[in-house]
Amino acid sequence: MPGYETDTVARIETNLDDISPQVLGAVMQQLLAAGAFDVWFTPVQMKKSRPGTMLSTLCEESAVEKIADIIFAETTAFGLRVEKIRRLKLTRRFETVETPHGDVTVKLGFKGDRLLQIAPEFESCRFAAERTGVTLREIHSAALGAARAAFDRKSGV
Amino acid sequence: MPGYETDTVARIETNLDDISPQVLGAVMQQLLAAGAFDVWFTPVQMKKSRPGTMLSTLCEESAVEKIADIIFAETTAFGLRVEKIRRLKLTRRFETVETPHGDVTVKLGFKGDRLLQIAPEFESCRFAAERTGVTLREIHSAALGAARAAFDRKSGV
Amino acid sequence: MPGYETDTVARIETNLDDISPQVLGAVMQQLLAAGAFDVWFTPVQMKKSRPGTMLSTLCEESAVEKIADIIFAETTAFGLRVEKIRRLKLTRRFETVETPHGDVTVKLGFKGDRLLQIAPEFESCRFAAERTGVTLREIHSAALGAARAAFDRKSGV
Amino acid sequence: MPGYETDTVARIETNLDDISPQVLGAVMQQLLAAGAFDVWFTPVQMKKSRPGTMLSTLCEESAVEKIADIIFAETTAFGLRVEKIRRLKLTRRFETVETPHGDVTVKLGFKGDRLLQIAPEFESCRFAAERTGVTLREIHSAALGAARAAFDRKSGV
Amino acid sequence: MPGYETDTVARIETNLDDISPQVLGAVMQQLLAAGAFDVWFTPVQMKKSRPGTMLSTLCEESAVEKIADIIFAETTAFGLRVEKIRRLKLTRRFETVETPHGDVTVKLGFKGDRLLQIAPEFESCRFAAERTGVTLREIHSAALGAARAAFDRKSGV
Amino acid sequence: MPGYETDTVARIETNLDDISPQVLGAVMQQLLAAGAFDVWFTPVQMKKSRPGTMLSTLCEESAVEKIADIIFAETTAFGLRVEKIRRLKLTRRFETVETPHGDVTVKLGFKGDRLLQIAPEFESCRFAAERTGVTLREIHSAALGAARAAFDRKSGV
Repeated sequence: MPGYETDTVARIETNLDDISPQVLGAVMQQLLAAGAFDVWFTPVQMKKSRPGTMLSTLCEESAVEKIADIIFAETTAFGLRVEKIRRLKLTRRFETVETPHGDVTVKLGFKGDRLLQIAPEFESCRFAAERTGVTLREIHSAALGAARAAFDRKSGV
Repeated sequence: MPGYETDTVARIETNLDDISPQVLGAVMQQLLAAGAFDVWFTPVQMKKSRPGTMLSTLCEESAVEKIADIIFAETTAFGLRVEKIRRLKLTRRFETVETPHGDVTVKLGFKGDRLLQIAPEFESCRFAAERTGVTLREIHSAALGAARAAFDRKSGV
Repeated sequence: MPGYETDTVARIETNLDDISPQVLGAVMQQLLAAGAFDVWFTPVQMKKSRPGTMLSTLCEESAVEKIADIIFAETTAFGLRVEKIRRLKLTRRFETVETPHGDVTVKLGFKGDRLLQIAPEFESCRFAAERTGVTLREIHSAALGAARAAFDRKSGV
Repeated sequence: MPGYETDTVARIETNLDDISPQVLGAVMQQLLAAGAFDVWFTPVQMKKSRPGTMLSTLCEESAVEKIADIIFAETTAFGLRVEKIRRLKLTRRFETVETPHGDVTVKLGFKGDRLLQIAPEFESCRFAAERTGVTLREIHSAALGAARAAFDRKSGV
Repeated sequence: MPGYETDTVARIETNLDDISPQVLGAVMQQLLAAGAFDVWFTPVQMKKSRPGTMLSTLCEESAVEKIADIIFAETTAFGLRVEKIRRLKLTRRFETVETPHGDVTVKLGFKGDRLLQIAPEFESCRFAAERTGVTLREIHSAALGAARAAFDRKSGV
Repeated sequence: MPGYETDTVARIETNLDDISPQVLGAVMQQLLAAGAFDVWFTPVQMKKSRPGTMLSTLCEESAVEKIADIIFAETTAFGLRVEKIRRLKLTRRFETVETPHGDVTVKLGFKGDRLLQIAPEFESCRFAAERTGVTLREIHSAALGAARAAFDRKSGV
């Protein structure tokens, strides 16, 4: 598929019906700290009327054992499902834009050389919000506006 | 509101983020066995990334202490929210209808003398399904058809 | 609470575990068409392992019977919970703003005379998106930027 | 697996934590209009306490680029997961049945020549409901009854 | 209800279908930092196919304006539902218990003088886990065991 | 991956938007009775505002037809997605431990000869809870403590 980048990652999942959500909240941090690309929880209804949680994580294929070791150590899992998943991705580039509330980093996403995404970085917006007292929403909107103005001009989008 | 019955019940709720879903599944049975009208779980996202569960139960106002005692004994709750709720209800009546797969009980719901609901009783359908090997869906549909034929005629709906 | 408007509305709720989601989708439209302020579904886990749905609707207190009649006619409910709820609200005003993609209606929200919300109207954005072929996100962002520029100036926010 | 039809489709998924649900509602329509077989949202709990949404869509393998282009244009996605999925399917046939409320289309599903599913078409039921003022549930139930009577006879189920 | 403490709090709720989950994650922190007792998100399905979020927060009745001001400033809400809720609570006391992995704080819950809950404090367990490298689950279980041994003895439970 | 057991199973999934949750609750039991390893429901938001349910089941690859036959017979599905999934698993062993409330079975999980999981069997705990009147949570905690004491000693964990 010309224009898109592709790669292959591992998705590791397990359904948990015998663990405290307190522990799961901490496990999410541990998995991200260990290099998982993403971690998320899906509410699932399991047998015997149990309101369980499906833990999902994406990681590099070479990191499966390391991630699996953490899940087996920190959760009650006795088994994990491991799948190989192909991804389509935009090419990413980071830039800085000026806003009335200070500089903000934005992430740009390209299909080939066509600019498709402009996303103000959340932590950068939060930093500006905390420094200025302006709301996060307003910073985000200002950064998005500034970035559209700057990059639409350059890329001709 | 003429035609509808009304009553007042208690709704007891608590958000749980430090209990195993296995235990919650058993608590649902205990609360129903103790006379709660209904018990349900709602998936909620709590602080510190915890995939928690809101436990809700409806009971008679006179049963609040009994139900609260069970929740405090069997779950990790330190507090419960208790609300008084007004309900609008249909008048209920149970009848038996003949189907090709045997007799099935149906629950009828009236606003005044106007028939609004015909609901084949689930356990009665399941019993017929198990006895005959016919699927639950087919029994349900046959009972609904038979009941509509019988009661629409009588009530003139 | 000075600055906020307040009113009282009815919230009507019922848990449904014996109705097809197809029908529920249509009921949402019927309730909105009948004047409900809002209608939403919450996934709930009910007894006997049933993945049920809580139907919630907000309406004027004078509309409770009308809304109840629709729910009893179109769903399998035998009972409804009816609560009286106090709301805090912003004062609303609608304005039109010019964007590079055409005019868009925005909804403004005030606490007293302080402007707190600027929300481009979704249908107005969608109309512009369909007319111009520009994405909905881009229209929304342009309208928000134009409105902030216009109204921040006037209101001194 | 004798009796079942099989095919292979693409499932495209992405987790979104930085997009307005208003936009997602519109994207669902756009994807269906572009020929996606199905589109659905799953509530997921993402990092940093974000109540995100997983967008899933099924489409023909040859349509992956077209569907991906829409998702990258209309949502905030920087990446998509693309999987090839084998399906088992019933053979479908559409028929019309007479009901007291007018003709209704039903979809039949066969494993080989064994009739397994009879599903009144929703839009056909809705049309009849709107024309006659009878509730959707009643039309659906009448059509199901009529179809069972008609097709059970023919197929010997 | 003898034995239980009671109080009255405010529950503030709003359904949001036009805000980025990124922002909502940050709002949860802001509300907790401002003194809300609890904040949680419930996934709700709103009109026009929008996968929305219900934001719920509990706070002191005297804090309603402060909490409302934050929600109106940081989210897209135009209105909030405010309810007064009675709570039943256990009397709380904090104690320290010795475990093989160091001291851990536990929260005790009493109905009158009857001990009903023993809950190792999460942050205290996490601190011990980080200091010792032992898993959070193991610390929690050791603290619970030590506390049961210590307090069951004293209270005669 | 040395230390972990692996196997391959089938995951069968289908999205249902036209079936009563009552029936789905019964289907879960039927699938488990037919030998499915696991069955769960995920709430999904489908087209036309339908609050649907994704039914997922894991089974042996040789059992796919049998499980598919049940789903097609008992639900409204016209198609199923069938995937082959690799699992990483701990080696399992069952043991009995003595607790103050009687013997309880525990499931042990090993990576090679390293003990990673100790899980008191739920039904065994429930049996002890019912026999003694002690809460399920207390039995579970006692069994976990006893098992940790017994097996940590042997395995040197």
